[in-house]
Amino acid sequence: MVLLMKKDNLSDEEFTRYWLHTHAPLVKKMPGVRKYVVNVVKKSLNRELDYHGVVELWFDNVDSMKMAFASPEGRITQEDTYKFASSITSLYIEEHDIPL
Amino acid sequence: MVLLMKKDNLSDEEFTRYWLHTHAPLVKKMPGVRKYVVNVVKKSLNRELDYHGVVELWFDNVDSMKMAFASPEGRITQEDTYKFASSITSLYIEEHDIPL
Repeated sequence: MVLLMKKDNLSDEEFTRYWLHTHAPLVKKMPGVRKYVVNVVKKSLNRELDYHGVVELWFDNVDSMKMAFASPEGRITQEDTYKFASSITSLYIEEHDIPL
Repeated sequence: MVLLMKKDNLSDEEFTRYWLHTHAPLVKKMPGVRKYVVNVVKKSLNRELDYHGVVELWFDNVDSMKMAFASPEGRITQEDTYKFASSITSLYIEEHDIPL
């Protein structure tokens, strides 16, 4: 999971458009990606919009993830991130889908 | 989506155990919850573990979400949150599941 802040010079619309239409196609080319969800933050309740986006990326395991980001496609993707995001916080997650 | 920091007096294990076994059952009782995912942060790559957990909760719409948190079960859940979390940042999200 990656928490993103947008670049100051982009509007919310420009940030979302770049992410979905330019950046997301690059992420999809990374080897080993099993699932990819883009979460655009519409509103933050407690503070002044700490983060503008949350990325969710699934891999089979940690090694697959490292290989993906070390691949040529992974490097291109990471460089591109800084074209629309100013701050990036990467979190390794253990997911628990709670049955309702 | 809610970003959580754990209370200082809890270990990582105590935080995770309380969340999954005491708090999650309360969340499940809230009316209108459609899906519930608990993401435990194992490691933060860029900074000193900004957040220890990320909650994902799905509702049919914003009104359903507001009703859930305003309900008796919602109030009990929110009070319980402070038994294991010290900081809470709530984000309204627009989710885009990117087809691979």
